[in-house]
Amino acid sequence: MFVFEEQEIRKYISINREIIVQIEGGFTKLARKEINLPPILRMDFPTYDGEVDVKTAYVQGMDSFAIKISSGFFQNHILGLPSLSGMMVLLSAKTGLTEALLLDNGYLTEVRTAAAGAVAAKHLAKEQVEVAGVIGTGMQARVQMEALYLVRPFKTLLVYGRNRENVERYKEEMESKLPVKIIMAESVEEVVRKSDVVVTTTPSTVPLIRAEWLHPGLHITAMGSDAEHKQEIDPLIFQKVDVVVCDVKEQSFRLGELHHVRDELDMDGVIELGEITSLQKNGRVNEEQVTICDLTGTGVQDTICAYYAYNLLKDKSV
Amino acid sequence: MFVFEEQEIRKYISINREIIVQIEGGFTKLARKEINLPPILRMDFPTYDGEVDVKTAYVQGMDSFAIKISSGFFQNHILGLPSLSGMMVLLSAKTGLTEALLLDNGYLTEVRTAAAGAVAAKHLAKEQVEVAGVIGTGMQARVQMEALYLVRPFKTLLVYGRNRENVERYKEEMESKLPVKIIMAESVEEVVRKSDVVVTTTPSTVPLIRAEWLHPGLHITAMGSDAEHKQEIDPLIFQKVDVVVCDVKEQSFRLGELHHVRDELDMDGVIELGEITSLQKNGRVNEEQVTICDLTGTGVQDTICAYYAYNLLKDKSV
Repeated sequence: MFVFEEQEIRKYISINREIIVQIEGGFTKLARKEINLPPILRMDFPTYDGEVDVKTAYVQGMDSFAIKISSGFFQNHILGLPSLSGMMVLLSAKTGLTEALLLDNGYLTEVRTAAAGAVAAKHLAKEQVEVAGVIGTGMQARVQMEALYLVRPFKTLLVYGRNRENVERYKEEMESKLPVKIIMAESVEEVVRKSDVVVTTTPSTVPLIRAEWLHPGLHITAMGSDAEHKQEIDPLIFQKVDVVVCDVKEQSFRLGELHHVRDELDMDGVIELGEITSLQKNGRVNEEQVTICDLTGTGVQDTICAYYAYNLLKDKSV
Repeated sequence: MFVFEEQEIRKYISINREIIVQIEGGFTKLARKEINLPPILRMDFPTYDGEVDVKTAYVQGMDSFAIKISSGFFQNHILGLPSLSGMMVLLSAKTGLTEALLLDNGYLTEVRTAAAGAVAAKHLAKEQVEVAGVIGTGMQARVQMEALYLVRPFKTLLVYGRNRENVERYKEEMESKLPVKIIMAESVEEVVRKSDVVVTTTPSTVPLIRAEWLHPGLHITAMGSDAEHKQEIDPLIFQKVDVVVCDVKEQSFRLGELHHVRDELDMDGVIELGEITSLQKNGRVNEEQVTICDLTGTGVQDTICAYYAYNLLKDKSV
C-alpha cells in the first residue's frame, strides 16, 4: 500500500489538459451508465458548523476506485485551522485491498472540481473567449481560472471579491500564473456584464448574479453551491437562459442551484454534462446563446482524479 | 495524525472486559437516541464476488468518530489474498480533521463484533452457563468464545464445523486460550441440544439451526448473516422463542436473520439490544426462556472501538 502526503501530491499533480480529458471521459461514462454511483454518505455536526461527506464511484472496467472522505468545519478558522480536510482511499476493484492513501487534505478535490469547470466551459462557452470573470477569491477562484485558460485561453480576467485585500492578493498571485491582464472589478454586475465566461466560486446563501445582467454569448458555471442552503444564482436566470446543464440531476436538484428552482423548472429540459460530452445532446449551438452549468461535484470525479494521481505518484516514488 | 498498523493494533488491543463495557454503553446510547447513525454506504462488485461498505456513527458528546471502510471479496483466496480488508479513520467531531488511521485490515471489526456478542449473552443468556457452543471455525468462532467467556465463564465448549481439519485446528488453538474442555461435535444438532449458549458465525445461505432442537434456557446469538442472502436460523425459530432481540431493527430486517421473517414477524415485538442494556425493556427474566439475538453490526460499535483503540495506542506510541 502506498501512502502519499499532501506535499508530494501537490508537487506532482496540478491542473493540466490530461486531467481535464480524464474528467470529461468520466462524465461521458456517467451518461452511458457505465458507472456505479451510490448516494453520498453525509453526517452533520451543527454545533461546530461542520459536515463530513463520503463519496465513491466505480467506473466499470477500471482497476481501482476511490472512497473520498471530506470534511468542512466552518468555525475552524477561530482555532487557526483549515476549514476543509480529508483524504482519498484508492481500493482495488478486483480484490477490495487498499492500494493507496492519498492524504491530500482536499487538494485533489480542488483539482477535480476545476477540471469539471473546464469541461463545462469547453462545451458551453463561446469558441473565442476574450474576457473571463470570477466571483470569489479563494482557492477555487484560482484553479477554476487556471483550468479555464487551458480550454479557452482568454486575454483578460475580471475578479470580484468583497474583501479588497483578498482581491489584491488574488491579482498578484494569478498574474504570476497566467499571461493575462487581471482587473479588479467594482461589482459582481461589472464582472457579469463584461465577461464571456463567469465562474462563481462562493459559499453564498443569497443570489449574487441577477437575470438583467445576462447578455448574448455569456456562459456561467456555478460551482459554489453544494448544499441546500447555498445559492449564487438568481432563480429567474434559469427561466431566461437557452441551455441549463448540471453534473448530476438528482444531486443538483437536491444540493445545487437547481434546488431553488426545482418546483418551477422542467427537469426534463435540464441536460447533464455527460450527455453533452458523450454527444447525446447539444451544448452551445451558436455564439448568441446564454448557457449555465450547475456543478455540485460527483464521486466519479474523485475516482478518476485519485486513479490519475495514484498512477503518476506511484511511478515517481519508485 | 497518528497512523497505526495492524501489527501494532493487534499487539495492544484485544477482547477484554473494558471494550465489552464500552460497546454495551454504545448500545445504550443508541436506544437513548444519542447517536447519529447514517445509512451504510455500500457498493457491490458482482464480477469478483465483492462488496465494500462504509459505516459511520457519531456518539453525541464524544470528541471523535470513526468512518470505517471494509471490503469483502470472496474469490480472493484463489489469489492467495485475504477476503476481508479495510481500515478505520478516526476524525475529530469538533474540527473534522483526521486524528488517526487505524490500518487494521478488519481486526477491530472482529473485536467489536465479538464484544457485541458478549453484550447479548450478558443480558440474554442464563446466569450460569456450563456449556457454550459455536457453529463455524473461523476468526469470529474464536473471538466470540473468548468474549463470551468474560461474561459467562463456561466449562465446556462444543464446536462444529464442516471441515474436520479446521475443527481440529480450532480445538488446538482455543485450548491454549481458554481454560475449558473443548469437544468436537458431530453435528449442529449436537451443539444446539447440549449447549446453554450457541453462537453461529458462518456465512451460510441456508438455515443451520432447526426449531425442534430448541430447549429451555437456550440462548442463540446469530452473527453470521449481514446480507440479504445469508441465513443461519430456521425462520420457525423466531415464532417459537420467548425473546427476539437484534442490534438495529431497520438493519436486521433488511440484512440479518430477521430479513427472512420480515413478513411473518411483528416488528414491534422485536427488542433492540440497547433497549435492554438501557433498562427500558427486559432481556431474559427466568432460566426457562429461549432467547435469540440477531447481530448485523453497526457503525456505533466501530466508532466506539476505534476511539478506544486510538486512546490506548496513542499512549503506547508516545
